[in-house]
Amino acid sequence: MKNSFFSRFAPKETKFFPLLKQLSEIVLSASELLMESLKHESPEERSEYYKKIKDVERQGDQLTNRIFEELGKTFITPFDREDIHDLASSTDDIIDCINSAAKRIAIYNPRSISDSGKELAVLIHEGAVHICKAMDELETFSKKPASLRECCLQLHQIENHADDVYELFITRLFREEKDCIEILKTKEIMQCLEKTTDAAEHVGKVLKSLIVKYA
Amino acid sequence: MKNSFFSRFAPKETKFFPLLKQLSEIVLSASELLMESLKHESPEERSEYYKKIKDVERQGDQLTNRIFEELGKTFITPFDREDIHDLASSTDDIIDCINSAAKRIAIYNPRSISDSGKELAVLIHEGAVHICKAMDELETFSKKPASLRECCLQLHQIENHADDVYELFITRLFREEKDCIEILKTKEIMQCLEKTTDAAEHVGKVLKSLIVKYA
Amino acid sequence: MKNSFFSRFAPKETKFFPLLKQLSEIVLSASELLMESLKHESPEERSEYYKKIKDVERQGDQLTNRIFEELGKTFITPFDREDIHDLASSTDDIIDCINSAAKRIAIYNPRSISDSGKELAVLIHEGAVHICKAMDELETFSKKPASLRECCLQLHQIENHADDVYELFITRLFREEKDCIEILKTKEIMQCLEKTTDAAEHVGKVLKSLIVKYA
Repeated sequence: MKNSFFSRFAPKETKFFPLLKQLSEIVLSASELLMESLKHESPEERSEYYKKIKDVERQGDQLTNRIFEELGKTFITPFDREDIHDLASSTDDIIDCINSAAKRIAIYNPRSISDSGKELAVLIHEGAVHICKAMDELETFSKKPASLRECCLQLHQIENHADDVYELFITRLFREEKDCIEILKTKEIMQCLEKTTDAAEHVGKVLKSLIVKYA
Repeated sequence: MKNSFFSRFAPKETKFFPLLKQLSEIVLSASELLMESLKHESPEERSEYYKKIKDVERQGDQLTNRIFEELGKTFITPFDREDIHDLASSTDDIIDCINSAAKRIAIYNPRSISDSGKELAVLIHEGAVHICKAMDELETFSKKPASLRECCLQLHQIENHADDVYELFITRLFREEKDCIEILKTKEIMQCLEKTTDAAEHVGKVLKSLIVKYA
Repeated sequence: MKNSFFSRFAPKETKFFPLLKQLSEIVLSASELLMESLKHESPEERSEYYKKIKDVERQGDQLTNRIFEELGKTFITPFDREDIHDLASSTDDIIDCINSAAKRIAIYNPRSISDSGKELAVLIHEGAVHICKAMDELETFSKKPASLRECCLQLHQIENHADDVYELFITRLFREEKDCIEILKTKEIMQCLEKTTDAAEHVGKVLKSLIVKYA
């Protein structure tokens, strides 16, 4: 994808799809690292994972900037410029959220991660899988929007599920935990995880608006 | 407002105003439920109110998506497309903020809601009333902007007032309350309430930009 | 800069640059006040500084609105309308972040401000200096982008540095401090300070996108 003479004048369909697909694969890597990291309990192991996630986050950042730069240089884009911008930036937001969650786990060093926390990480990973699938549909959904629509629905349901897990957990946390510092740590980590599924649902909303406009 | 053949080709002035008005009425309902809920002390009653507010929040979400869909399909809009988008999305943000506040009250279950908390809920409700009025002005403000301008001013003053109530309360809270968990709960609930008045003021800013552009 | 007949038809280059420069000078004032305020320990002195910062924040708000109004009225802008909008609003965000940090310091009244907190304030001030420099480049960077590019790089490095300071501090805080209320106060104040350097880096990103588009 070097921005050679050829690629700058390539037909409009081919330029942004592989970049967006690549970005979704970075979301997937980050979500796998997060899920994996929660299986470890020692501060040293956790901060190893946080380092890896931080690297992945930087790759996401660079790729997103690359997409924005291409947008600034390309005359004919497959969708409206701002749609591609929104799609890239909302996808990158998921990576930022995963990074924030991993960061808090590393620097707060809570006593342990609850089962509910692990469940949220699994839901985040499921969301990432759907977003990868969705990016494969970008080239064809204008004729066959059913699969893309299904991805959006899944992202919405994952967010609802995550919300329930979160609310139940926090209600119990405040009822049962008496150590204020532990509450403080746990609550914020769980908020970060839950917010990550919001960010994934937001990508679903951007995708839905594409269906409305182009299918 | 079914999107019939007729409504799709209706003259540009008639399409979005009733939808935006409807959205502002959802803000009003949510703010009434919030104000009402703060009169109850038991966790069961509070979670009943939270359920109702959650339902209203979903209605707001659906209506906002509906407005975005209509924007995607309509060629001639009464204002620039992004102005209607900003107005709908910033109005929906108020509902989300009210929902966040109600959620925290339900799942944190604080000892009690302070008078300052109740005062903020009243200010949020006042803001909602002004936003409803503002939506009635959308069709006519380009000729007579005075009433719309007054709504914006009120939203600004309500936010300033809420800010003072919030700051005074938190200063006292940290001076007097010694139970850390209670501080944690109360501070976050109050932050949510105060942020709701910010969100309402933000709608005022969007409206002011409409006056600059179209009046 | 009254919007007289003459200024409305002034050549496109002259209108927005001095306004943006002025806004960056407000960022600089706010950052100086913040840095200064952290040298004082008494609640009374701190709230004096907060009052001053609040005033400066309002000036920033008014100037930003003024820029938005000018954008609504001007036909030919030196960059795309949304670029100027993004630049003004992201610059104003820094002022809001400084105000939030000062507000929390005033109303939480923590035992003391750590050296790391003071270091973050110095980094915020350095960022402000680079943003002021950057605004001087707006008129000429399309021919000579090197200085503007350097500003963006500096803002990025300052954010990275601030992130390290923040993470190290919070890790230690949770390891060493046992007073939960003090943790709560300190953590949130430090988050606000760190976020301010994010906001400054964000201005850097907006500037970089200008280089891509116009240089």
